[in-house]
Amino acid sequence: MLDPTGDLLALTRALCDIPSVSGDETAIVDAIEAALRRYPHLEVLRDGDALVARTSLGRAERVVVAGHTDTVPIADNLPTTVVGSGSEAAVWGRGTVDMKGGVAIQVALAAALTAPTRDVTWVFYDHEEVEASLSGLGRIARNHPDWLAADFAVLGEPSNAGIEGGCNGTLRVEVRVPGVAAHSARSWMGVNAIHGAAEVLRRLAEYEAADVEVDGLVYREGMNAVAISGGVAGNVVPDECVVTVNYRFAPSTSVAGAEAHVRELFSGFDVTLTDAASGARPGLDDPAAADFAATALAFTGGVPAPKFGWTDVARFAELGIPAVNFGPGDPLLAHKDDEHCAVAQIQLCHDALRSWLTS
Amino acid sequence: MLDPTGDLLALTRALCDIPSVSGDETAIVDAIEAALRRYPHLEVLRDGDALVARTSLGRAERVVVAGHTDTVPIADNLPTTVVGSGSEAAVWGRGTVDMKGGVAIQVALAAALTAPTRDVTWVFYDHEEVEASLSGLGRIARNHPDWLAADFAVLGEPSNAGIEGGCNGTLRVEVRVPGVAAHSARSWMGVNAIHGAAEVLRRLAEYEAADVEVDGLVYREGMNAVAISGGVAGNVVPDECVVTVNYRFAPSTSVAGAEAHVRELFSGFDVTLTDAASGARPGLDDPAAADFAATALAFTGGVPAPKFGWTDVARFAELGIPAVNFGPGDPLLAHKDDEHCAVAQIQLCHDALRSWLTS
Repeated sequence: MLDPTGDLLALTRALCDIPSVSGDETAIVDAIEAALRRYPHLEVLRDGDALVARTSLGRAERVVVAGHTDTVPIADNLPTTVVGSGSEAAVWGRGTVDMKGGVAIQVALAAALTAPTRDVTWVFYDHEEVEASLSGLGRIARNHPDWLAADFAVLGEPSNAGIEGGCNGTLRVEVRVPGVAAHSARSWMGVNAIHGAAEVLRRLAEYEAADVEVDGLVYREGMNAVAISGGVAGNVVPDECVVTVNYRFAPSTSVAGAEAHVRELFSGFDVTLTDAASGARPGLDDPAAADFAATALAFTGGVPAPKFGWTDVARFAELGIPAVNFGPGDPLLAHKDDEHCAVAQIQLCHDALRSWLTS
Repeated sequence: MLDPTGDLLALTRALCDIPSVSGDETAIVDAIEAALRRYPHLEVLRDGDALVARTSLGRAERVVVAGHTDTVPIADNLPTTVVGSGSEAAVWGRGTVDMKGGVAIQVALAAALTAPTRDVTWVFYDHEEVEASLSGLGRIARNHPDWLAADFAVLGEPSNAGIEGGCNGTLRVEVRVPGVAAHSARSWMGVNAIHGAAEVLRRLAEYEAADVEVDGLVYREGMNAVAISGGVAGNVVPDECVVTVNYRFAPSTSVAGAEAHVRELFSGFDVTLTDAASGARPGLDDPAAADFAATALAFTGGVPAPKFGWTDVARFAELGIPAVNFGPGDPLLAHKDDEHCAVAQIQLCHDALRSWLTS
């Protein structure tokens, strides 16, 4: 049984030590549900392995605080361990950064804050680390849009306890280079598709990614081949080479605009869009967001920064809800075998969020 | 039971209709062995699934006539069928070109020629279509070099019933381009190995393959990427890209010389040689070869031509035995789903070889 009101590190470790690789979230969500159903100030709702717990105090403002319960595959790094002590202590293991530190804060505050100054909808969702169509947050938005109604949302994705606003958009295309197959002993009878890909790679190598300022934050873009494949056998001139390109684009650019940019870059080649997600503007000019940023940064210091990776703040942006990332852990350690999170950051984010929800 | 003295087309079809994909040659070799052991003019020897049948008449000259019994995988193209009639008839199915037409000629003449004018060593070997180290011909050369002793060798590989001399050499290298992995949302923290491969592909695309005259025949070379791979996941800047390059080089160039040429072409990159086989000079200046060419071409017409693909004539060249390719079937149809061979070519090659061995 989870103890939401006990030690925050112990709660974080308990959540990490329940394996919950995408698709296997039932056990952890059962545990969170059982823990939160004991609190009469919370209405608890569930859809599959997505869970919502909310207050209904008639406050003037409602905020969503959301986090995903799934992780990428475990790399022999569970159960968790704690290394170091005092202000240097860190908890090591899968999920400590991405993002059960944030989930622990949600569970603890959902239980503790019986009368927050803003109504709160605590959202725990499944399938964040896999293809977008499986997302538990997307499923709630489709099945129960009212569960997500809010003026503002905080997503507990790791941000080193800073406020990261918005996110870049992302799309992937396959650039296909055709050829004509032939035996490599008579290669003049064919056309080598891999050789034809030289021009695609040249354009990528020479591409200069832009820095784009949006609402006062500077977003760095990126245009990268993430895969290349071609070849049939060791003695065959290949008749196709496919380069998969991932474009990360500033939130001021639409998916359609980004796609057009990529198609222009690879003009003359067959370009197929395989997936895309728009970015989200930082939204820090919204009063609720500005208020949250002021309160949170009074605890953690720093200034709001752009989020480069795509996160579900973009999903909230699509719903018309301003959202920021705010959570413990260094995002560079997410998905790594040596994933670990400073214990102090978990406490700091907890305290900042508690302060904002009680002031 | 095979009937070596019956209809040549029927014998060809019977051999094709015994499936013998590399590694599965036992049934066909058992059948050939059983057929040839009935002839007292032949000494029959066996090593695994390689079979040798030879005369020992004390002739002044000994020739090897060799063919492999294995095929590439069957493409739903067995049992054989015959399409067309008369001079237009063709036998369709796996192995008809590569090279059971040639094997049928060997079986028929081994049985029929009780007193050839040259002593003949008929060689049937396994594992030609797979990696060189498994070759049954190589195994005989290691275990029983005396079985291959000869003044000249004819290899029944498909040559459109023409004489194809020598063969190009072949080698493969892996050209490795390193990078530094990073999340593609923060690509500036990494180095994209696929982008780095642009230069490798540029050199390949701009490479002009040479035509090289050797002993009067012109060999066309070829330098081709036969595979490229790189990429870890759709959101990762890849840390390695590997281009596999196949160089087909004229028989006047040694493996060492060819390797040096490839290393020079890809200077600045990590180049690993993965396999290599030297070519074979055409050897048509050898008296035995010249005599065979004159007799065979009196039947089939044409002039000797270079063989571009690597064949086991190179293995004979290494043993110091001049060798040529001479067999029925269009080599461009080898390994194809629509593999088929003109029946007239099988008969023509049979008659030419018979004439040479009895004149």
